[in-house]
Amino acid sequence: MFFHKKNLMYEVKVSQADPRFARILLEQFGGANGELAAAMQYFVQGLGSRDTKMRDMLMDIAAEEISHLEMVGTCIDMLINGHPNEEFYQTEIFDFVGGNGPNLMNSYGIKWTADYLKVSGETASDLHNNIAAEGRAKITYERLMTQTDDPSVLDMLKFLMTREVTHIQNFQEALYSLEEQMPGVMSGSPEFVKKYFNMSTGATDARGPWNEDGKFEYVEDPVPMGNNPAEEMKAKNE
Amino acid sequence: MFFHKKNLMYEVKVSQADPRFARILLEQFGGANGELAAAMQYFVQGLGSRDTKMRDMLMDIAAEEISHLEMVGTCIDMLINGHPNEEFYQTEIFDFVGGNGPNLMNSYGIKWTADYLKVSGETASDLHNNIAAEGRAKITYERLMTQTDDPSVLDMLKFLMTREVTHIQNFQEALYSLEEQMPGVMSGSPEFVKKYFNMSTGATDARGPWNEDGKFEYVEDPVPMGNNPAEEMKAKNE
Amino acid sequence: MFFHKKNLMYEVKVSQADPRFARILLEQFGGANGELAAAMQYFVQGLGSRDTKMRDMLMDIAAEEISHLEMVGTCIDMLINGHPNEEFYQTEIFDFVGGNGPNLMNSYGIKWTADYLKVSGETASDLHNNIAAEGRAKITYERLMTQTDDPSVLDMLKFLMTREVTHIQNFQEALYSLEEQMPGVMSGSPEFVKKYFNMSTGATDARGPWNEDGKFEYVEDPVPMGNNPAEEMKAKNE
Amino acid sequence: MFFHKKNLMYEVKVSQADPRFARILLEQFGGANGELAAAMQYFVQGLGSRDTKMRDMLMDIAAEEISHLEMVGTCIDMLINGHPNEEFYQTEIFDFVGGNGPNLMNSYGIKWTADYLKVSGETASDLHNNIAAEGRAKITYERLMTQTDDPSVLDMLKFLMTREVTHIQNFQEALYSLEEQMPGVMSGSPEFVKKYFNMSTGATDARGPWNEDGKFEYVEDPVPMGNNPAEEMKAKNE
Amino acid sequence: MFFHKKNLMYEVKVSQADPRFARILLEQFGGANGELAAAMQYFVQGLGSRDTKMRDMLMDIAAEEISHLEMVGTCIDMLINGHPNEEFYQTEIFDFVGGNGPNLMNSYGIKWTADYLKVSGETASDLHNNIAAEGRAKITYERLMTQTDDPSVLDMLKFLMTREVTHIQNFQEALYSLEEQMPGVMSGSPEFVKKYFNMSTGATDARGPWNEDGKFEYVEDPVPMGNNPAEEMKAKNE
Amino acid sequence: MFFHKKNLMYEVKVSQADPRFARILLEQFGGANGELAAAMQYFVQGLGSRDTKMRDMLMDIAAEEISHLEMVGTCIDMLINGHPNEEFYQTEIFDFVGGNGPNLMNSYGIKWTADYLKVSGETASDLHNNIAAEGRAKITYERLMTQTDDPSVLDMLKFLMTREVTHIQNFQEALYSLEEQMPGVMSGSPEFVKKYFNMSTGATDARGPWNEDGKFEYVEDPVPMGNNPAEEMKAKNE
Repeated sequence: MFFHKKNLMYEVKVSQADPRFARILLEQFGGANGELAAAMQYFVQGLGSRDTKMRDMLMDIAAEEISHLEMVGTCIDMLINGHPNEEFYQTEIFDFVGGNGPNLMNSYGIKWTADYLKVSGETASDLHNNIAAEGRAKITYERLMTQTDDPSVLDMLKFLMTREVTHIQNFQEALYSLEEQMPGVMSGSPEFVKKYFNMSTGATDARGPWNEDGKFEYVEDPVPMGNNPAEEMKAKNE
Repeated sequence: MFFHKKNLMYEVKVSQADPRFARILLEQFGGANGELAAAMQYFVQGLGSRDTKMRDMLMDIAAEEISHLEMVGTCIDMLINGHPNEEFYQTEIFDFVGGNGPNLMNSYGIKWTADYLKVSGETASDLHNNIAAEGRAKITYERLMTQTDDPSVLDMLKFLMTREVTHIQNFQEALYSLEEQMPGVMSGSPEFVKKYFNMSTGATDARGPWNEDGKFEYVEDPVPMGNNPAEEMKAKNE
Repeated sequence: MFFHKKNLMYEVKVSQADPRFARILLEQFGGANGELAAAMQYFVQGLGSRDTKMRDMLMDIAAEEISHLEMVGTCIDMLINGHPNEEFYQTEIFDFVGGNGPNLMNSYGIKWTADYLKVSGETASDLHNNIAAEGRAKITYERLMTQTDDPSVLDMLKFLMTREVTHIQNFQEALYSLEEQMPGVMSGSPEFVKKYFNMSTGATDARGPWNEDGKFEYVEDPVPMGNNPAEEMKAKNE
Repeated sequence: MFFHKKNLMYEVKVSQADPRFARILLEQFGGANGELAAAMQYFVQGLGSRDTKMRDMLMDIAAEEISHLEMVGTCIDMLINGHPNEEFYQTEIFDFVGGNGPNLMNSYGIKWTADYLKVSGETASDLHNNIAAEGRAKITYERLMTQTDDPSVLDMLKFLMTREVTHIQNFQEALYSLEEQMPGVMSGSPEFVKKYFNMSTGATDARGPWNEDGKFEYVEDPVPMGNNPAEEMKAKNE
Repeated sequence: MFFHKKNLMYEVKVSQADPRFARILLEQFGGANGELAAAMQYFVQGLGSRDTKMRDMLMDIAAEEISHLEMVGTCIDMLINGHPNEEFYQTEIFDFVGGNGPNLMNSYGIKWTADYLKVSGETASDLHNNIAAEGRAKITYERLMTQTDDPSVLDMLKFLMTREVTHIQNFQEALYSLEEQMPGVMSGSPEFVKKYFNMSTGATDARGPWNEDGKFEYVEDPVPMGNNPAEEMKAKNE
Repeated sequence: MFFHKKNLMYEVKVSQADPRFARILLEQFGGANGELAAAMQYFVQGLGSRDTKMRDMLMDIAAEEISHLEMVGTCIDMLINGHPNEEFYQTEIFDFVGGNGPNLMNSYGIKWTADYLKVSGETASDLHNNIAAEGRAKITYERLMTQTDDPSVLDMLKFLMTREVTHIQNFQEALYSLEEQMPGVMSGSPEFVKKYFNMSTGATDARGPWNEDGKFEYVEDPVPMGNNPAEEMKAKNE
């Protein structure tokens, strides 16, 4: 069961109206890598999880992310409240696409969709999904911080960015605590699992730990191993 | 520049028509975690990458994934070709939503969207995105393998699942080769970065490496640290 | 700030696995008129509201709806857990489109979108939006109750349907407490505001309080009052 | 059967090109609360209605809304025709996302979707849906009227806004003419139907007709009434 | 201005309830190639057209397609009315995703979107778009006719299929009446316009009028003509 | 099987950063009529085609279009690389909606969807679909050429526009080589196939080859030929 307290998780203040920044900040409200996406990804994973410890962690962080969503939405609302009329372009997204305030859309007015979520229903895979999600959110906060000078807003963004770091670490520790970090249960066929196919060729082809000898077998000039369905169809038709 | 050879990357054969399985296999053709999603994610990341070595690896794997997409599509086409008429429910998705053959939709007829992609434009973050993506695809292949007995189809699925394992390893090696695996460039505020908030409470709360003492400061009973915007608004209105 | 308690708002139990019903029940989890839609509609309206009393009511009900969402998701998870394998059609939506558990999609696997929300940012209009939303949700619960015999599930559905009734009444009382229930601030032009145009004609045309004399002026045979842009364009071209 | 007359329902003229306003006006052409949404909502409700009188009213108003759609589209077309080249930003939405004229998209280029419609297939509920829809459209016209000074365009907008008022009144009269205005057929459980849960708590909690004594039982400090699925799962696993 | 007459354009009757066919028939109501898509494509093209003759034809056919939409919707409504309860799977799409009757979705419950439309705002291109659209609709009606034995329904489908043939012919005659059938105004570069690149190679490569000598220059083994951005980037970084 | 060579199909260079044009150019990367849409339409049609010669042509052109997609993406990347900071509005779409580089979205940040594709699975119809698609792409390139002065970019656009002309000609030759260019297999009913219904009426109604005597029977004043479902329902209820 969820409860709401009217005080925010962390202080949200703005020095002055800034509808331009409000519009960009929508990315963290209703954008692909924003707080609703994070909250819903962990909440949905938690509900379906058979591992009660993971479930607890997922619900802890989901509830925190909804509280972040509230902070971001409150900040957007403050930033567009009392804005001067001449900045019409920056605010029409709120007047006409949103509902005169924050809405679940990104900075281009595109409404949030659960297609943004990555849910596998398998602990290792979902932890990988979550580490990746928190990384994207961290970068988004950093990019947002380059677009405002308002010290109060920057302070809030710093707090939220920090919490993404924390969650990356939480999910990583959880992943390392598993016996097996590889998602799924099957092993790859020995015949193919160590081959690296050089599918993109040019004057030079990059080599590194991801395709180096010892770790992988580098196939410099891959050729088709399979059949030709068009030929088979032609043979059949004749 | 891309070139196509008519022989497939790996053998694709089916023992008999199986429109029911063809329908489920659409998940790997036009589904959220399917081969088009993988191919496009790496291709788009590659085009925008400033790191020429990563770019090369991304293009190698993107080209391989498009070749996998072709294999999966060919298999679907073979599975619905010559199917008996009475299995209408399983095939109408192809007749009426698709175009009488494989189409870029998932097993419920929902068309593919680039909302499925996760692209950050930052090497560490994109490698996390890709490790997570390959894990989801591996699990999907494993689940598909429980739904068919056709040895030829199983052989193809095993090959494709294996290649996901390879790519997970490629991306992991690439990630470990970076100086910094944490996405972004900023550090978290020391005041908050080690706090774990117990936001979901019950008879017992799970503890583990993700919230244990030493690594994190466990806040058993978190309270709001912020202001109450509704109160402030009320005060202002009075 | 949001907090989560591990006990549910109301008892959720199932007598036995029923993946077919689990699939339909997704309508109230990630469907157009389901609990997430209700929760997010009120939460978003609340964040943007300048009326602190309405804002409080909206947050009260939003927090309750998220708690309902959790109940519905828990019920779906119980209904698919331990289901017999042969009922494949009913469960593949969870295995392949969802993530092995409840996910934010409707009963046809279509992912939730914020396009479902109706937010005007004006109190009277939003209360109309909410009364309508609760009515749709009430009907959906009633239709769901015709599709299961499980007494525990029926008890939960009855509770949730009841709460929709309560919320309709809350929103109606709030609407009646406003000085003006008509959304917006402008009056209609006297010349046109009382006209009813009989645009659909047949052997008989229905009459009733919505077009009856005294209340409205019934225009039996409406004709265009405007210009002909094609003619004007033709004249201009000549 | 539908027929088209080339004269518009009401005069549409523009004083001069105004691509900026044309772009915003798209909200009423292909936006979430625009004329196509209204027309299709009533048309679809009408086709499925078993109540022949309601069906007639729905078809009357649907046909009028399509005629409004044509007026709005014609106005957009006039506003972008002959616009000066330098206003590129305002017109590229037409050149590149639309098709050089009005198209079924909102002011941010997002294409219309039937997800915008609210159709219950039950008379009381659909009338609530329609009253709410007309209210949103009325507000949108009012907001549009603040963004243009063109007297001809303002005259058209005033006419269209007026007709929304008329339709609100039509739908309200129809609703009041029903024996039962509550959607659905079931009553709420007496145990829960009058409870108001104070789910959002703070320094002060608002009281009013929507939660006041006599009408409702105010639960100041709600607690979970249900079980703890995570505990049950843990018990089961042990 | 649009007017509605209650009599349908053509007789619609059903011999008995058939919810299975009703579900498939949704393709022509709210599907990608259905009647709403046709109606809206021509209506939108017509509103933006500067060629008053084409505009008239587009409006004639748009109004007819809306009348077809009404016929299809009426047929769906008749097919699900009075259906036996046991055929639940076939009807739940109406009960839970639609609104108890026809709705603007395809046979898999996916809501209609204006992304289906193809509008260029240029006469030749739009006529190509329309010929193609009518062809897809014709095929869909033919496929639907293989899925029902009901003579009344078949008669209606035959009528609608016939009208697609008529419209193909109308649009083709209009296209042939243009001075130039190639969309746009620019000619291709002589250097490249006649080259056919054999990009897909195998044991045999098909030859025919589309790549034969005289008409085209066949490039058997195409090679990149362009630069290598990765090399350039590497050079720049060094 | 697909292979990638690092050299581009054709030279891509830019004279200077131009984020504004980069944004518009997204239309050909991830827009409705862009290169991915073309590539995927032909690739999907090819995989499902039973006609091995058509299949070969479709795969030739699909592989070329993916190579065009790579050129367009590379150009976008060059245009935003090194752009001056002050042009924020033009680049935020890349920073916040894309991933710091080209992404599969149109110029308004709307992500690519397979709803853009037109695939019938029937040769004649698919060739019509493809001729229409190439025409839209040609026009888009022409419109893009009015928005840049960069000679290198113009040269690339000219090349790409030229190839659309080539493909229109390829598809037309293929269409003419078929015995039957009308999609589907059924003929229209003689009773209705030559009728032209004048559904849109005004001061003058346009006449031309598409509705002229000899070719068509012009029905000046069409009337409903069908029943009145509302009357039938009323009769039944009484």
